[in-house]
Amino acid sequence: MASHSLTLFTSPSSFNLFSSHRLNPSPSYFTLHFPRLVKRPHFDIQCSVSIEKEVPETERPFTFLRDSDGDDTQSSSSSVRARFEAMIRAAQDKVCEAIEAVEGGSKFKEDVWSRPGGGGGISRVLQDGNVWEKAGVNVSVVYGVMPPEAYRAAKAATAEQKPGPVPFFAAGISSVLHPKNPFAPTLHFNYRYFETDAPKDVPGAPRQWWFGGGTDFTPAYIFEEDVKHFHSVQKQACDKFDPSFYPRFKKWCDDYFYIKHRDERRGLGGIFFDDLNDYDQEMLLSFATECASSVIPAYVPIIEKRKDTPFNEQHKAWQQLRRGRYVEFNLVYDRGTTFGLKTGGRIESILVSLPLSARWEYDHKPEEGTEEWKQLDACINPKEWL
Amino acid sequence: MASHSLTLFTSPSSFNLFSSHRLNPSPSYFTLHFPRLVKRPHFDIQCSVSIEKEVPETERPFTFLRDSDGDDTQSSSSSVRARFEAMIRAAQDKVCEAIEAVEGGSKFKEDVWSRPGGGGGISRVLQDGNVWEKAGVNVSVVYGVMPPEAYRAAKAATAEQKPGPVPFFAAGISSVLHPKNPFAPTLHFNYRYFETDAPKDVPGAPRQWWFGGGTDFTPAYIFEEDVKHFHSVQKQACDKFDPSFYPRFKKWCDDYFYIKHRDERRGLGGIFFDDLNDYDQEMLLSFATECASSVIPAYVPIIEKRKDTPFNEQHKAWQQLRRGRYVEFNLVYDRGTTFGLKTGGRIESILVSLPLSARWEYDHKPEEGTEEWKQLDACINPKEWL
Repeated sequence: MASHSLTLFTSPSSFNLFSSHRLNPSPSYFTLHFPRLVKRPHFDIQCSVSIEKEVPETERPFTFLRDSDGDDTQSSSSSVRARFEAMIRAAQDKVCEAIEAVEGGSKFKEDVWSRPGGGGGISRVLQDGNVWEKAGVNVSVVYGVMPPEAYRAAKAATAEQKPGPVPFFAAGISSVLHPKNPFAPTLHFNYRYFETDAPKDVPGAPRQWWFGGGTDFTPAYIFEEDVKHFHSVQKQACDKFDPSFYPRFKKWCDDYFYIKHRDERRGLGGIFFDDLNDYDQEMLLSFATECASSVIPAYVPIIEKRKDTPFNEQHKAWQQLRRGRYVEFNLVYDRGTTFGLKTGGRIESILVSLPLSARWEYDHKPEEGTEEWKQLDACINPKEWL
Repeated sequence: MASHSLTLFTSPSSFNLFSSHRLNPSPSYFTLHFPRLVKRPHFDIQCSVSIEKEVPETERPFTFLRDSDGDDTQSSSSSVRARFEAMIRAAQDKVCEAIEAVEGGSKFKEDVWSRPGGGGGISRVLQDGNVWEKAGVNVSVVYGVMPPEAYRAAKAATAEQKPGPVPFFAAGISSVLHPKNPFAPTLHFNYRYFETDAPKDVPGAPRQWWFGGGTDFTPAYIFEEDVKHFHSVQKQACDKFDPSFYPRFKKWCDDYFYIKHRDERRGLGGIFFDDLNDYDQEMLLSFATECASSVIPAYVPIIEKRKDTPFNEQHKAWQQLRRGRYVEFNLVYDRGTTFGLKTGGRIESILVSLPLSARWEYDHKPEEGTEEWKQLDACINPKEWL
């Protein structure tokens, strides 16, 4: 059995105070939280999850799902859990193949692990390649237990209905790709699915579920055609499902990847969404699948075009300074990272998002009108690219 | 008038949750908090301080103290506030002179700023020198207002005595020195003094004060004679005041500079203390002065010995990996840094503590028995060096 221990904190003031450090139960490099279960506005539930130590595995299992998720009564072969896991594992394979094809020789190193109580993950890292200085593509599956207070606040349960701790399931793919060439952009994408069990002790209280994720990129230098290409692929993926998705998730992305102490975004955005459950579940599963499939066509053509662009030391130094900002965002603000560090997730998988190298110069200010200044300006003032 | 806005959060559970991110009112790169004012154990008061935007100054003022701190009735010429400010400014001059003497050519760049409501600071940074890749030595003085709830919990005030917001004063010196040579250690020191006014509306309620600080160092390679020298100078400074200081503050240092997610210390320690007010105030002022005076004799002889040691790419890469850990500690755990980033302190002064460059390799493990392994082992298992 999993020995997850959970603690619930519901102070709205502490949430406001720590808004940039919202702790969500995302033990293994992806974000989970329970806002939909709480009715009050401007209020979030913060959960502390202590997860079991992972155990290295020598082979990839067919599935990280628990056996109990595979019995006939749950018809797991077609369950969203099983299909989401299959989707992210296929996406991991395809992205890694595409990266290796561009690398032309360097290969990903794979680490597989499981947890005694269920779940596990596959980390793939390619380091110091020909094109990428560090490329990490991780999938993981987590089983945990949700505190009863979180579920009690859900719509379906009244104040009198007090379920015990509610088991939850989470699965996600998460990737950061840092190229060597300063004209080639860094890419991040992450898609995740969360599901609770229906509490057995509260008749009629339903299973809860939601999707989250996004794809965003961080060039150190702006090539407008690249930015337009990247955003247009995101928009195409969104438009297949809902015309409101792209504008809404583009803004959400600009708002999320915000380095508050710098008043800058980490990069030039893309799409980001979280807690998404107010659409048809099958539609959202297809949407997440489409987004994950869009990573290669959105990114690889840009890399092919920029990976061999000649550059000098100044270009490299600027890229390194922007990598420093990447580190600042991930260590100070990113929910998945900050929570993962605190809950005993697999540290090397969590921190694979950090670049191979980064730089901090005191009070560096690019000269107005330079290419560096234009990039910084676009991080300070997010633009509509399409 | 200063427009400080303060909010108080007193949830003990949220303190436990966020213990690695305790928010203390340390707006400008040093730490202030109010634990002595609260009687309950395992309980801390977390304050949110929004500070005014700093204004650049063209010249260093004689003092950053408010005029009201200089009138006769307060006999400020001999006040602890005035003497502490004079001490840290003299220490800043001496340390910078010593660094420049070793550099043999490179000079510190100085930025002076003030805040309309009182206080200000001097940042001095030497970047890409002959010996240091980045050396920052900052002093600052902050005036703020303490929430009444914090003071109400103090011993001297009963539940019926409810003072209004209580003004406070804080001053500190803070420095991080990152050398280029991988055999030359990084140094950090920070000494600070905190004082509240006596609340005017509660007769008999006293002024509160405390001292904090420490000096610690972070070699990438261990030379036992260097570590012994560094610690023995710290011990000598401590022993002049109290034989219990060195063992107590050495352990406190090992406990504070702890990278929890790695189960490693940032470096090889030194001394650290905080909230110190249970000794004679004059004695503690002398102690802080002695500690600040010990920085040069503790550190500069080691630098002189190691700055020109031949090294190869592997040595440099290991230093860069340990610099990555320095970044992780400072951005994730350091109270002064994390709080400063959230409250609008001067960002460039706060983040001058970050190295010029740092590195993150996936799953790097030094081979057992190597020099790199010995350093890591000493960070995992703190040793008694004397």
